[in-house]
Amino acid sequence: MANDMARNTSIYSRRESEARSYCRNMKAIFTEARGSELFDADGNRYIDFLAGCSSLNYGHNDPDMKAALIDHISGDGIAHGLDFHTDAKSAFLRAFEEIILAPRGMDYKVMMTGPTGTNAVEAAIKLARKVTGRRNVIAFTNGFHGMTMGALALTGNASKRGGAGTGSLSDVTHMPFEGSLGEDVDTLGLIDAMLSNPSSGIDAPAAFVFEPIQGEGGLNAASDAWMQGIEKIARKHGALLIVDDIQSGCGRAGTYFSFENAKIEPDMITQAKSLSGFGLPFAALLIKPEHDIWKPAEHNGTFRGNTHAFVTARVAMEKFWSDDAFEKAIAGKSVVLTTALGDIAALVEGASLKGRGLMQGVDVGSGDLAAAICARAYDLGLVIETSGAHDEVIKYLAPLTTSPQIMREGFNILAQATSDVTTDMKIAAE
Amino acid sequence: MANDMARNTSIYSRRESEARSYCRNMKAIFTEARGSELFDADGNRYIDFLAGCSSLNYGHNDPDMKAALIDHISGDGIAHGLDFHTDAKSAFLRAFEEIILAPRGMDYKVMMTGPTGTNAVEAAIKLARKVTGRRNVIAFTNGFHGMTMGALALTGNASKRGGAGTGSLSDVTHMPFEGSLGEDVDTLGLIDAMLSNPSSGIDAPAAFVFEPIQGEGGLNAASDAWMQGIEKIARKHGALLIVDDIQSGCGRAGTYFSFENAKIEPDMITQAKSLSGFGLPFAALLIKPEHDIWKPAEHNGTFRGNTHAFVTARVAMEKFWSDDAFEKAIAGKSVVLTTALGDIAALVEGASLKGRGLMQGVDVGSGDLAAAICARAYDLGLVIETSGAHDEVIKYLAPLTTSPQIMREGFNILAQATSDVTTDMKIAAE
Amino acid sequence: MANDMARNTSIYSRRESEARSYCRNMKAIFTEARGSELFDADGNRYIDFLAGCSSLNYGHNDPDMKAALIDHISGDGIAHGLDFHTDAKSAFLRAFEEIILAPRGMDYKVMMTGPTGTNAVEAAIKLARKVTGRRNVIAFTNGFHGMTMGALALTGNASKRGGAGTGSLSDVTHMPFEGSLGEDVDTLGLIDAMLSNPSSGIDAPAAFVFEPIQGEGGLNAASDAWMQGIEKIARKHGALLIVDDIQSGCGRAGTYFSFENAKIEPDMITQAKSLSGFGLPFAALLIKPEHDIWKPAEHNGTFRGNTHAFVTARVAMEKFWSDDAFEKAIAGKSVVLTTALGDIAALVEGASLKGRGLMQGVDVGSGDLAAAICARAYDLGLVIETSGAHDEVIKYLAPLTTSPQIMREGFNILAQATSDVTTDMKIAAE
Amino acid sequence: MANDMARNTSIYSRRESEARSYCRNMKAIFTEARGSELFDADGNRYIDFLAGCSSLNYGHNDPDMKAALIDHISGDGIAHGLDFHTDAKSAFLRAFEEIILAPRGMDYKVMMTGPTGTNAVEAAIKLARKVTGRRNVIAFTNGFHGMTMGALALTGNASKRGGAGTGSLSDVTHMPFEGSLGEDVDTLGLIDAMLSNPSSGIDAPAAFVFEPIQGEGGLNAASDAWMQGIEKIARKHGALLIVDDIQSGCGRAGTYFSFENAKIEPDMITQAKSLSGFGLPFAALLIKPEHDIWKPAEHNGTFRGNTHAFVTARVAMEKFWSDDAFEKAIAGKSVVLTTALGDIAALVEGASLKGRGLMQGVDVGSGDLAAAICARAYDLGLVIETSGAHDEVIKYLAPLTTSPQIMREGFNILAQATSDVTTDMKIAAE
Repeated sequence: MANDMARNTSIYSRRESEARSYCRNMKAIFTEARGSELFDADGNRYIDFLAGCSSLNYGHNDPDMKAALIDHISGDGIAHGLDFHTDAKSAFLRAFEEIILAPRGMDYKVMMTGPTGTNAVEAAIKLARKVTGRRNVIAFTNGFHGMTMGALALTGNASKRGGAGTGSLSDVTHMPFEGSLGEDVDTLGLIDAMLSNPSSGIDAPAAFVFEPIQGEGGLNAASDAWMQGIEKIARKHGALLIVDDIQSGCGRAGTYFSFENAKIEPDMITQAKSLSGFGLPFAALLIKPEHDIWKPAEHNGTFRGNTHAFVTARVAMEKFWSDDAFEKAIAGKSVVLTTALGDIAALVEGASLKGRGLMQGVDVGSGDLAAAICARAYDLGLVIETSGAHDEVIKYLAPLTTSPQIMREGFNILAQATSDVTTDMKIAAE
Repeated sequence: MANDMARNTSIYSRRESEARSYCRNMKAIFTEARGSELFDADGNRYIDFLAGCSSLNYGHNDPDMKAALIDHISGDGIAHGLDFHTDAKSAFLRAFEEIILAPRGMDYKVMMTGPTGTNAVEAAIKLARKVTGRRNVIAFTNGFHGMTMGALALTGNASKRGGAGTGSLSDVTHMPFEGSLGEDVDTLGLIDAMLSNPSSGIDAPAAFVFEPIQGEGGLNAASDAWMQGIEKIARKHGALLIVDDIQSGCGRAGTYFSFENAKIEPDMITQAKSLSGFGLPFAALLIKPEHDIWKPAEHNGTFRGNTHAFVTARVAMEKFWSDDAFEKAIAGKSVVLTTALGDIAALVEGASLKGRGLMQGVDVGSGDLAAAICARAYDLGLVIETSGAHDEVIKYLAPLTTSPQIMREGFNILAQATSDVTTDMKIAAE
Repeated sequence: MANDMARNTSIYSRRESEARSYCRNMKAIFTEARGSELFDADGNRYIDFLAGCSSLNYGHNDPDMKAALIDHISGDGIAHGLDFHTDAKSAFLRAFEEIILAPRGMDYKVMMTGPTGTNAVEAAIKLARKVTGRRNVIAFTNGFHGMTMGALALTGNASKRGGAGTGSLSDVTHMPFEGSLGEDVDTLGLIDAMLSNPSSGIDAPAAFVFEPIQGEGGLNAASDAWMQGIEKIARKHGALLIVDDIQSGCGRAGTYFSFENAKIEPDMITQAKSLSGFGLPFAALLIKPEHDIWKPAEHNGTFRGNTHAFVTARVAMEKFWSDDAFEKAIAGKSVVLTTALGDIAALVEGASLKGRGLMQGVDVGSGDLAAAICARAYDLGLVIETSGAHDEVIKYLAPLTTSPQIMREGFNILAQATSDVTTDMKIAAE
Repeated sequence: MANDMARNTSIYSRRESEARSYCRNMKAIFTEARGSELFDADGNRYIDFLAGCSSLNYGHNDPDMKAALIDHISGDGIAHGLDFHTDAKSAFLRAFEEIILAPRGMDYKVMMTGPTGTNAVEAAIKLARKVTGRRNVIAFTNGFHGMTMGALALTGNASKRGGAGTGSLSDVTHMPFEGSLGEDVDTLGLIDAMLSNPSSGIDAPAAFVFEPIQGEGGLNAASDAWMQGIEKIARKHGALLIVDDIQSGCGRAGTYFSFENAKIEPDMITQAKSLSGFGLPFAALLIKPEHDIWKPAEHNGTFRGNTHAFVTARVAMEKFWSDDAFEKAIAGKSVVLTTALGDIAALVEGASLKGRGLMQGVDVGSGDLAAAICARAYDLGLVIETSGAHDEVIKYLAPLTTSPQIMREGFNILAQATSDVTTDMKIAAE
């Protein structure tokens, strides 16, 4: 009977808000997870190509982080420490300085915001407005930055924006992301022209905010040249450059920060999702020291600086980023991924590849088709999701640590699902 | 040397944002905590009358929650599950239904928002605007609801609001909280008069949002009559009633929800802080089913539904709320607290008591004095903080589980600190 | 046939917007007007107790202004001069300096805004925000300041505000006007308390804007003490004081500016309505020289500085304000008016008098009753209108120059109309 | 002495706001004007190529309008009639119906807004938001629509926008006008792409607002194809089409409405400037009957429906628009103008022609150069002004009725001035 209860999902329809989403199509009750595998209450195994939307870049329950966390809890380590000094926080900050910042020649202050990406984004735009005395912020088509009012104003998605009801999503100008108006349209030229014209009606911006690879927006990957162009335009017009690296960071794009190859120097960087390494709520805003003009507690939050996350995040840095082995492994897997997705794209007429690093996908041209393929894949034991303005992109976000074998297994399922669905459609069309 | 490093706080000035606050005055590096006691790297012991700003109502590292959490992690339970069904989530929802909702005759849907209070507040006002088609929200003087742009617009504190820089904090009307204009001013009459006058310029409100006891605003406790009055005014003017129970809830005010005695029926209730029981990031919005009109994913978030928090929150409910023993214990301690604070207030001319339940404090009339007393108390081994528009209230927020002995020990320190500071002042004044 | 056409109002229903209002109840086609009398196409005579809502304080077609205007036009004087220097403008400014400003010891710059009151109000709040660097403006219940978005945000009336549809009426805090919460509520204390509390959520204001007598809001006349109190609060909180004297100015309240007896010193004063003296479109903003920080053309408008209005406005000042005879005459008539309205109020149970000077009225307690009385008065040859949040005040706004004889004639009609309507109501009620 | 006073401009520096502009460079005190000629207090004559910024399309003091207006005033015709029916208003509406609307097959309601262009624009956007229930309005680079907060939000010019200080200019998206991003950029495609992308962040618009020829923005003339494209995009996205014809209308562009040749059907049309024919303040909003959902007085204003302007506007329509003679004359003069401006452009390296009809100009590439030429022209007896984001366009806006002889005389002065200035510059450069 306990088992029956464990498998009964009526509590969800009875008690959980209609806002719930993933569980509607993937109805399993998950109970355990290791690495790139999920297990449900009936013992079924699923390969995880979603990884908590890139919050589990190092896989589920990494044994080293797990050991450190259990050790911390067992010893009555601090669980909640507001923004007090704690040994766990000291160790996190030191590791971040030594392993992440110093080797990259980066000089940033770390702001512990509330432990969700949207909190970090809110802190960033508040600070940019304080620093510059300007109000307008430039965001981009297909950008996604969060659900609280300040971050939602930056977010492009009409359905998400609709959640604000009659509330005002103001003080933001939405500009076209690279490629969004067609391959041949010079978006940098357009943006610079609009801002350079004193009669354009676009107020001088406090900041530009963009994702190097748009995770929710369809895996649109900005080129290095475009990122450099935006940096240049921002500097020219006296605006700060904010990179939202929440989904694309922590190795997902091939380097720790997704923009490293572009050699841009953001004034602020938002981090969340895989920052804790273990899937725990954690977010931070990196701020160039000269812009760190916050007064004490001017932006605070009860859960800023999740102590459990400090513990696992430190282990993640030490384990994966102390040398370049992990980066090299990602590079290798990225090539494998491109090839595998290319094979899948070949099954769908007009399909094309999107993204880069281990943040790639297949644009199958239709949200219905993408949904059907993901649903079929789920039935075959693969958790994978869609992305894009029309949900038309099948998005690969497996843990970066996924073994070649499981990658291959997952690709096979995805190919099977794609083949099944397209075959069904052809039959239906005949 | 490792120990030296453990005691070195230079990493904070070098790497943590200027936004940090508590650690500026209470400089210890905390390493362990149990119940109502904190320990630092040098083995010093501190009594905790702050409890993570009411996030640790059941104390630090409660052994039962700790065991359950370690068990969950050890067994590779889900750490991050997006909004999938999980065994931990099912169990949490069932416990919430059986232990919290059903016995109180309450019917609410649970919305897992991002795991910070401000996210829950943002979800609430977005939904209220969607439901009513109205834009304006009524908030109150000295109210505190969070730091993201939507919640910050509701927040009264000028310094916090200043963090938004030039950003727009709009669509909110701030009305006087009970007592804020003086004991004899009828705030309910005033509010109803303003809203009933079609030429007042106050647009018809989507919602009223208030805290039954204003935690950051100075422990102003609304009377049952005032809460009933606001409910009546809200109903009269077609507005939803949203109770922000983030700091005052989970037993802090004497009952699970702080407004239970007033017998009001909020349309939405925000919860966070002690909801996880263990100090883990966790927040939820309770919604009357008829208002739960969210479309799937219309408001979402990566860390909505923190799975570790599901585990500990369930244990907290089972352990503390399955019968009325805990509630009775709180009632007893509240009486003790009132007496003890009265003794301390007697040491300061003009001081008065604020708040109710285990959320009481002493208004010493001056922020400087309150800060001096708290600083002295810290030196004597007691962590306690201030609150109020001028930080003029010394705020007791110890774990609800604090033993009578430790309560007494803490009161003695606080009395000593108050006496020391007032004596010093008298000497300085002579 | 020409006559038939002259009396045919079908063109209005066919071609004029549904926004039209006065002509719906008072359907005559007016053709001529002299002093306080209007004549329609059928030769019917109407006494005018409305005077273009106080735009015709010196009556219709004052012979001296008329002669000067015809002379100007006949001689090909400038009709439209943008903001060029013209002889007519020079003469206007000199007369304004010598007749209005100098004798009152007032030092103001004159800004020619677009020739409507709302344009002057918009200029005032824009400038106040520029001067102070603050955003929030304090306006009052029952205040009316215009229909363009900036002025409408200050306006209290819900129906007028509704005209903005989904547009944002932001950056304004609405506070209670004197008496609006009941005779015994200390609105000054309330306002100061809200602004003095750093956690009230009311942002520091750029300006206070009020009408000394609220024309559309129900003839609520602020006491000298209240105006002085608002001035004091404004100074205390670093806000500018803006007096909207559009309807109450130009002698209507007994003195040229309606606030003269209160001896307050506004930072800005808006003027329009009777400023031209002849009913021509004309508005101005008076600005304390130290606040006149406009850059050239930073606020402009095609019709700023209506040249025909310069001509008539100069004559009006010379004729009516060169000595104190006119002011004395107004004082005498005000006494007569109070008595006459008292007699009318005596006919309606619970009715009371409102306003002061020649801007008085009778609050009959119900918009329906007031409308019925005005409609009956119109049938008897008297043009008079209502005011107030519920249109419950019968408002006397006859030209200041109305002869005692015509005043008496009008009062008789109004008494008759009131008697007729209340008698009908009693019969209906039986 | 009286004469001295007449020539003394110290009253302006002493008493008129710093916002004044034209009179700073053109310092004459004008006293008389006839047709296309202005005369100052010293009897100097100036040719008027500015015409009140297109408010005097029929010249100064047209004898027929002048006679009708004197006749009206002499007979004590209504000067100020609120929105009562008057004989003058009836006649205006009938003439507008018969002479303007009917022959063009146009069906519009006429809304008498406050008598300035900005009031008409405010009414238009308020109504569009009411009709559609949407908030966002699309405006264009280099657009100019007025100075009140609603219209200013639509206006592109940064200096004008700066006049709002910290006030919020929200709910508007600024899109590129035809040609503003370079000749080869497809602005229609860009706009449609942004609006068609559900993740662009551009909220569904209530309306598009544009000027067929941007008067203040540099005489950018939209092609018929572009206007048709905007109409199509507006229809596709459920938005209303609002044409701001304030400066370009009343024959200025060659036809009564400037968009007639494009055969578009705006939902609303704003009119002002030359609508009265005589330079009197007057504005109107034309509304498709199905959108005329105003409630009575929902948008009103003291000076809505300037009665003197009704008189002159009727004469203007009867005299100039009863047959096609005037339109043909404009066509002829437009050809002459193009040739003449071409000759002037030939004097300046890189100069090019802008605009169409009798709203043309020369882009000399630099605001300083354009200002110098206009200043020199003024010294030689020609009033002419600049336009454009950088004030780089010398703008011809002479009365449409200007005789060929005076046109030629003015062109000669302009050519002389251009030659003088460019010669001086060459000498200075050597």
